[in-house]
Amino acid sequence: MSVTGLLAEVADVGRDATRGGYSRFVYDHAELTLREWFTEQAERRSMEVETDRNGALWAWRHGSGGSVAPGAVVTGSHLDSVPGGGAYDGPLGVASALAAVDLLDARGVRPARPLAVVAFPEEEGARFGVACLGSRLLAGAIDPDRARGLRDAEGRTFAEVAAAAGLDVAHVGPDPARLAGIGAFVELHVEQGRGLADLDRPVAVASSVLGHGRWRLVVEGEGNHAGTTLMADRRDPLVAAAAVVLAVREVARRYDDARATVGRLQPVPGGTNVIASRVDLWLDARHPDDAVTAALVADVRRRAQELAAAEGCTVSLVEESYGGTVHFDAALRDRLLGVLPGAPVLATGAGHDAGVLASAVPTAMLFTRNPTGVSHSPHEHVEDADAEAGAVALADVLTDLLGA
Amino acid sequence: MSVTGLLAEVADVGRDATRGGYSRFVYDHAELTLREWFTEQAERRSMEVETDRNGALWAWRHGSGGSVAPGAVVTGSHLDSVPGGGAYDGPLGVASALAAVDLLDARGVRPARPLAVVAFPEEEGARFGVACLGSRLLAGAIDPDRARGLRDAEGRTFAEVAAAAGLDVAHVGPDPARLAGIGAFVELHVEQGRGLADLDRPVAVASSVLGHGRWRLVVEGEGNHAGTTLMADRRDPLVAAAAVVLAVREVARRYDDARATVGRLQPVPGGTNVIASRVDLWLDARHPDDAVTAALVADVRRRAQELAAAEGCTVSLVEESYGGTVHFDAALRDRLLGVLPGAPVLATGAGHDAGVLASAVPTAMLFTRNPTGVSHSPHEHVEDADAEAGAVALADVLTDLLGA
Repeated sequence: MSVTGLLAEVADVGRDATRGGYSRFVYDHAELTLREWFTEQAERRSMEVETDRNGALWAWRHGSGGSVAPGAVVTGSHLDSVPGGGAYDGPLGVASALAAVDLLDARGVRPARPLAVVAFPEEEGARFGVACLGSRLLAGAIDPDRARGLRDAEGRTFAEVAAAAGLDVAHVGPDPARLAGIGAFVELHVEQGRGLADLDRPVAVASSVLGHGRWRLVVEGEGNHAGTTLMADRRDPLVAAAAVVLAVREVARRYDDARATVGRLQPVPGGTNVIASRVDLWLDARHPDDAVTAALVADVRRRAQELAAAEGCTVSLVEESYGGTVHFDAALRDRLLGVLPGAPVLATGAGHDAGVLASAVPTAMLFTRNPTGVSHSPHEHVEDADAEAGAVALADVLTDLLGA
Repeated sequence: MSVTGLLAEVADVGRDATRGGYSRFVYDHAELTLREWFTEQAERRSMEVETDRNGALWAWRHGSGGSVAPGAVVTGSHLDSVPGGGAYDGPLGVASALAAVDLLDARGVRPARPLAVVAFPEEEGARFGVACLGSRLLAGAIDPDRARGLRDAEGRTFAEVAAAAGLDVAHVGPDPARLAGIGAFVELHVEQGRGLADLDRPVAVASSVLGHGRWRLVVEGEGNHAGTTLMADRRDPLVAAAAVVLAVREVARRYDDARATVGRLQPVPGGTNVIASRVDLWLDARHPDDAVTAALVADVRRRAQELAAAEGCTVSLVEESYGGTVHFDAALRDRLLGVLPGAPVLATGAGHDAGVLASAVPTAMLFTRNPTGVSHSPHEHVEDADAEAGAVALADVLTDLLGA
């Protein structure tokens, strides 16, 4: 089945009428619907589907249940989205993997190793705040107790929500046996930038993932009535938070190649006629050099403290997640380039489950062209022909890896 | 029954575990529960309860159904709250009215006129954005079609939500016959300031309500990926919105006695790793002189346009509601002062249904002491003795008005 045909089947799942695009958050109705769809698609391909201890779905060919034969070739991506995201970030990798399985079957490939297609949960961190939560748990990159205690916007914990979806949350955490059975992990993803568009090529091989992290800032002031409180008597945390947003921009510009963003900001209580008592905001910061990211965050912290104090407010800044710059396995990358001669090699500023797994197993990524480079937006796009070219490239890579 | 006892009955309704305090929004579960409680309390007092065409509850003594005898004396307030509001803003006026009815009965008062206790819907505008929606509709101060089309944060219209609660929304709008039957409206409210605390007095009579309005600003930029979009390529509406928040503070300080607040601000889509595509924010501005408020808002509009343009964004600013400064009926105020000799006379910066009805019927307000002045906050407070003193003052006023 074509990638386009597969994505068309889920085109109506999780549409966001308010923001545009899709909102598919881990364990919400839309994401659970996508899991059912994935399971059904995998079963149609004679793959056996299991859920790992961290809630990822694994569809196996020539493998079964919890036991993973050594040297397995694994491909896949994620089904969840950012709020109001596009149709491709995540699902393109899953649909391309399913389409690649069809291509392998059509070619009569007889794999010498087990093959799996995986769908990781909460890659975006849109619900519980930590990106790549499923792969981090698998790889031991987050403490299971911390993960269980993560809360969504409604105050429900990951443990509560995952348990309600049927996961045995007492056993979330690292799974070294599963990782030991994987010979190679290859994630295909829509490119989140214009590298391929500028080069006029459909598919690239990844070199590295930019180091990045998330920090939560909480600015606290004094909630009061917007009409009765004199301007001089205010300690308004939204005024302080606004100054922090501008400081983040200013600090980011001091460091070449740095990216720093506040995209999420919530005044509490958030009433029109209410001076906020607290503002929660999140900093996303990235740089190839971990020391530069640390310096940038330290600058933001210092400026935020000054700006909050000037308004009679206080501020705290806590790291929610951090991952240093990841360089993918050089041997595997070269092997992919052997299969896809002349494919461009591109770095990415976006985080991926592949970036997390790279610490544990030989890992590579393929990127499919994005004509505008826009991502995390309803305007994210992939041309049908490029989507199919990506699946063919992935099938070529899998054929090579499975046959070895 | 005491005011404190009445409020204790609803102390668990609509608590907000996230924000603290109470979130009781018009037609949500909590507000509907308060309506049931109000109806039951009124019926216990041999009052007949009807819902007017705009969803306000009216509990009548010596009156029935839709027909209102001339010269009725009406008291009451509202049951809805701001997000994370206190226990008193609204419910204190309703509970004091019910307690005052008990005092009248205990005194054996035989009213020469009809008496009603009213609970107005959506006084805070916390759900549909227009404060005093019920009294505005009653008084013809908002177009019924505009009211029907107002949307809550989930995109549901007032018409949909009110119809689901049983209101015949085809008939919302002005009700001159009802207004013509009212001889006096007296609203008791917790003071939202420290006037009484500074004077060491429990109850005041209101002089005026500060002119105030709400404006919605929409800043539009370009949504994109926080990791892959270079700082130089961004058109980030949250950066522009932050500059607008600071400009509001700066502009407000230019005008003596002005108050201008941004307490509600929503980046869309609002993901940590997403540059926002749009930010909605609301300006609350107030000044005794309507011309000054207009000048202040014009300044904000001009600065917002400059600041948005500097970030490659656009901004719109639309008035959602406006009411000029209201001076309460002088004769009625003096009559209240005759009953409550020596009571302080205070102006308020907060809006009230009484401020809307003042255009149509002789209207007055009583304020009950707030020891800290804090309001629209879980920390809003009234001492029990002051609550009872307020009810006694209201009963004294009603006795006088009903006997005339």
